[in-house]
Amino acid sequence: MRPVELIRKKRDGGEHSPKEISFLVDAFTRGNMPDYQMSAWMMAVLLRGMSDAETAALTDAMMRSGQVLDLRPLPGVKVDKHSTGGVGDKTSLIVAPIVAAGGLIVPMISGRGLGHTGGTLDKLEAIPGFNVNLSVGEFLQVLRQTGCALIGQTAEIVPADKKMYALRDVTGTVESPALICASIMSKKLAEGIDALVLDVKTGSGAFMKRQEEAERLAEMMVQTGQRMGKKIAALITDMDQPLGRAVGNSLEVAECLDILRGKRHPLSEDLRFLSVELSGWMFRLGGRVPSVAHGRKLAGELLAGGQALAKFHDICRHQGAIGDPLYLPTAKFTTLFRAPAGGFIERVQCEQVGLASLVLGGGRNKKEDVIDHAVGLELWKKVGDPVNAGEPIATLHHDHPARLPEALRLLKEACVIGPKPPAEPRVIVKKIFEGIEKTRFAASPCNTLPAS
Amino acid sequence: MRPVELIRKKRDGGEHSPKEISFLVDAFTRGNMPDYQMSAWMMAVLLRGMSDAETAALTDAMMRSGQVLDLRPLPGVKVDKHSTGGVGDKTSLIVAPIVAAGGLIVPMISGRGLGHTGGTLDKLEAIPGFNVNLSVGEFLQVLRQTGCALIGQTAEIVPADKKMYALRDVTGTVESPALICASIMSKKLAEGIDALVLDVKTGSGAFMKRQEEAERLAEMMVQTGQRMGKKIAALITDMDQPLGRAVGNSLEVAECLDILRGKRHPLSEDLRFLSVELSGWMFRLGGRVPSVAHGRKLAGELLAGGQALAKFHDICRHQGAIGDPLYLPTAKFTTLFRAPAGGFIERVQCEQVGLASLVLGGGRNKKEDVIDHAVGLELWKKVGDPVNAGEPIATLHHDHPARLPEALRLLKEACVIGPKPPAEPRVIVKKIFEGIEKTRFAASPCNTLPAS
Repeated sequence: MRPVELIRKKRDGGEHSPKEISFLVDAFTRGNMPDYQMSAWMMAVLLRGMSDAETAALTDAMMRSGQVLDLRPLPGVKVDKHSTGGVGDKTSLIVAPIVAAGGLIVPMISGRGLGHTGGTLDKLEAIPGFNVNLSVGEFLQVLRQTGCALIGQTAEIVPADKKMYALRDVTGTVESPALICASIMSKKLAEGIDALVLDVKTGSGAFMKRQEEAERLAEMMVQTGQRMGKKIAALITDMDQPLGRAVGNSLEVAECLDILRGKRHPLSEDLRFLSVELSGWMFRLGGRVPSVAHGRKLAGELLAGGQALAKFHDICRHQGAIGDPLYLPTAKFTTLFRAPAGGFIERVQCEQVGLASLVLGGGRNKKEDVIDHAVGLELWKKVGDPVNAGEPIATLHHDHPARLPEALRLLKEACVIGPKPPAEPRVIVKKIFEGIEKTRFAASPCNTLPAS
Repeated sequence: MRPVELIRKKRDGGEHSPKEISFLVDAFTRGNMPDYQMSAWMMAVLLRGMSDAETAALTDAMMRSGQVLDLRPLPGVKVDKHSTGGVGDKTSLIVAPIVAAGGLIVPMISGRGLGHTGGTLDKLEAIPGFNVNLSVGEFLQVLRQTGCALIGQTAEIVPADKKMYALRDVTGTVESPALICASIMSKKLAEGIDALVLDVKTGSGAFMKRQEEAERLAEMMVQTGQRMGKKIAALITDMDQPLGRAVGNSLEVAECLDILRGKRHPLSEDLRFLSVELSGWMFRLGGRVPSVAHGRKLAGELLAGGQALAKFHDICRHQGAIGDPLYLPTAKFTTLFRAPAGGFIERVQCEQVGLASLVLGGGRNKKEDVIDHAVGLELWKKVGDPVNAGEPIATLHHDHPARLPEALRLLKEACVIGPKPPAEPRVIVKKIFEGIEKTRFAASPCNTLPAS
């Protein structure tokens, strides 16, 4: 078998055998297949597509390129959640302690933010002392002690993905559903989990702008998970405006703590709703409850009873966080962004909001950039809200006044004010793909949020 | 401008501006764009295609990546011929001296053989002393003295192609008509020519197996040449059986010398016919004659009168060849391949014939392989000929008897004998694409060969 023959096969629309795919992944990971061959193959994959069987084989081969955690010695069902990423998307920090408090094991390996999107690891590192760089041994120890651990990618787990992703980023081969699916699923399945809930974002702030694209990816991931013997479901959720009210690392942790403390805020209800929904699915797939409805109820109880908050503090302590109550860094300055005109908020464009936080220092343009955890912004209005001219729409938290004008410009671009409230009501969970039965149904839950 | 953005643009089916293409070629040639980005872009080009304007821009950018010869100080019209390659395809050695003897300048830069196909340079190097590695200065001097010089690619001419081709070869991106067109045309146009005749082979032994593919490439090259202000025509010609009777370097030179000496051989008539046809087109495009018919007539006269042969000797002498008459190496052994059954020759498959010569040592599997110029084979039968069981079909010329069984096996595979002559008469020139008028017409000339 020669790489160039396999490149040609995919180029001409052929279907690879699992053996061929594992040969390619193996050769590339070991350095026996140069970058230029892998990038040509990935471009052919992007333009020709992959069958479900190929995608599953790729996921499997990538997963086996490194260490696959064996969590069987740990008693309990292991379940995780993965989001394709967005702006203000901080559900992991709420969902993980809820589900661990409910008695399941949550071995969560997360990523960092890039561009306008945030990353769970950056948010956790806003908590002084919190160490996301645990070795596999430490990870297992924290899991055993608290039922949950939140760490970053290690060098041992799926090294193929690290090499492939770095190459995809610079060769225009990121946007392949099959490659995205294999990248996500190989890492998640290497965690040694039994069940997985996927939160596939769609909308202007998501990686998948159009719902059909998000659905295709969701279906692909669900099928791949099933082929690999996992219980799995995917929720297509809204990312047409930021989730919750805070964007920026420290500010987002504070918003999560409010929810974990039972402190309700009307602008955080969508975040709370989605966190409860995701937890409900995790409980159901993990076999903790007979239905998602029971799962939602349990999640609500664990929030109301304080067990989720206690679990969060427990995790923080075991991962090195200092202080109780937690100390979070705050920015030197705050500045209000006021409505330039009166009317109704028609849109709050995620990409610009995320970039506003980035230019303040809260995000990364390049992987090497250092983050200022304190900066970011809090929204005071969301889509559909009425607003008077001059009324505050957001508070910017910043450390360098010189960066303010650009952030304000981006916010002004982000917030579109019109004469009438937008016609379409927002639905947070748009569709659900469930594993075993392969049924799809338009989701009933929407954001008819309870009065706070 | 960043390479990854341009890769994405082509991936999504966009059309590049000439500026974008020249940026890519320039960045890659200077080492500012890594191989893995170029291979991803070339795969996107292969699968998405390029417009005529893009192909012309790529040709132009590649041509300008190195030295473009300025032959204007040399008096006379400069004209060249290029073949896409085949088995027994030795017309360059006949056409170049004919056209130079007819008063045009022929600055011919050729390639080497790879796999089952032969290369002009290897054939020339079968002539002891013949030096194809002239510097640009020496090339110009020979051109000035004889009107023709036959050399190999220099490092100064189209360095982009050298880098791109090496990458295409190992990344499954050879088979893109746009990339093939730009590779051929950039090198030919860097020769500083006024007119070009393309011999685009089609058939089992050609790079383009199907005639439609050959036609598409021919059209693309003609349009590219026109856009760059050249007089140009493309002939689609047959490569369903070897051209002429000899395959192997020294044997092919001998066959050419026979034709230049006016010695007719029924099995070489197709080679003579095509050489006269190509010369006729070169004379016509070079403005030497008012029509192709006049050009053919002139070519025939230059062969009959001995001027073409004299010119060939002249070129050989100026490029270092030793001895007059030319001494050609001969193999130690000859072995007959006899018809395993009686009937009619239905097919003589080029690929196996070329490989038979290769296994005897006459070709290259890899670029680094050293060639034995003496070995090869002579055919005694061509498609349509009747044959008795046991009658010789070919003579194998070889130096290592151990290699003989494999060559005989390939020959047996190559020669298909049936009970009736094949129904379809062979037509050497199948179609012509002519530059300026953009007319296409099914070619009338066919191989109704004159009795010898």
